[in-house]
Amino acid sequence: MSRQSNRATDSKKMNSELFTLTYGALVTQLCKDYENDEEVNKQLDKMGYNIGVRLIEDFLARSSIGRCQDFRETADVIAKVAFKMYLGITPSVTNWSPAGDEFSLILENNPLVDFVELPDNHSTLIYSNLLCGILRGALEMVQMAVDVRFAQDTLRGDNVTEIRMRFIKRIEENHPAGDKCGVLLNSHIFCTMKKIFNLVSRLVKH
Amino acid sequence: MSRQSNRATDSKKMNSELFTLTYGALVTQLCKDYENDEEVNKQLDKMGYNIGVRLIEDFLARSSIGRCQDFRETADVIAKVAFKMYLGITPSVTNWSPAGDEFSLILENNPLVDFVELPDNHSTLIYSNLLCGILRGALEMVQMAVDVRFAQDTLRGDNVTEIRMRFIKRIEENHPAGDKCGVLLNSHIFCTMKKIFNLVSRLVKH
Repeated sequence: MSRQSNRATDSKKMNSELFTLTYGALVTQLCKDYENDEEVNKQLDKMGYNIGVRLIEDFLARSSIGRCQDFRETADVIAKVAFKMYLGITPSVTNWSPAGDEFSLILENNPLVDFVELPDNHSTLIYSNLLCGILRGALEMVQMAVDVRFAQDTLRGDNVTEIRMRFIKRIEENHPAGDKCGVLLNSHIFCTMKKIFNLVSRLVKH
Repeated sequence: MSRQSNRATDSKKMNSELFTLTYGALVTQLCKDYENDEEVNKQLDKMGYNIGVRLIEDFLARSSIGRCQDFRETADVIAKVAFKMYLGITPSVTNWSPAGDEFSLILENNPLVDFVELPDNHSTLIYSNLLCGILRGALEMVQMAVDVRFAQDTLRGDNVTEIRMRFIKRIEENHPAGDKCGVLLNSHIFCTMKKIFNLVSRLVKH
């Protein structure tokens, strides 16, 4: 379809509120489907992962980001380019570990939680956990295994929202990303992704 | 929370791809949850409705849209202001009924269906049905009862995507919109909405 092949040059800029409310509907649905918050958190992470492995293709096509020299540069690209592009915000990058393998993204203003307050019976819900999965999935496609988790969350009463990212290892093998959730999503994208994957696999190193 | 009270002046512009993929995850989840496409279509409409009754507050605050003189003006506002604001596209308004109570929105480029193709076993899925629910819910809050449905859909092989809207009646009574789905969404918004509702109730007439 021409529409789909034109996608990379045909981005639509939208206000974030519809996304925010749609995300709320998704989380609400998962809370109905799964017995406890822990399961919902896992599902959000898994869905995010599946989104991340797709979104990276779009990101690379749009951003023209080249080789990242190190994890610090990767952090800057995530905060200043990726978050700006897809969520319209620019988190600050802070709290580096001495070894340079861990940092925090501080979100002053998380668009996912506009309109939201956690009910008492969902006190352990990591509402925005989709973001962790997205980051994990996207980085895996450029051969970086990372651990991503929320360290602070304004929804739980913290002053800021903090996503903590820890570099685990560089992935040497070209193993294709799993796709258990996205049955409706077009498989052609994976063909493109494999090509890009091969190009990119040497671009990001730690 | 200051963040939430600042929301109206603090919109984030984002690319649509993350929204598109998140919406895909939502539809995929519903396809797992419900037995047939018809049920999924209903759920999408219902979720959309709940989103629409919230989004209208945001829309009125941002757009400063005043009194619509008739259904034709309402159609233009939907196409040129609302769709542009929340989806980054401007559908064309066509196919008016002689009585002026029905029209079509033609979407050349529906961002919800980027990346998507319908599997054979979901041939009756109205993938983007959330949009119908949103329009229905939002218009109900400004006292217009409308019927909204997809008349054509590129996902089903049509050349364009067409949303058909039919004016049913003006709602005279101030009955508050139902909220069975949005357990996680902040209830304070309804207080604001009631105030706005009273202001707006005389603004849109047919």
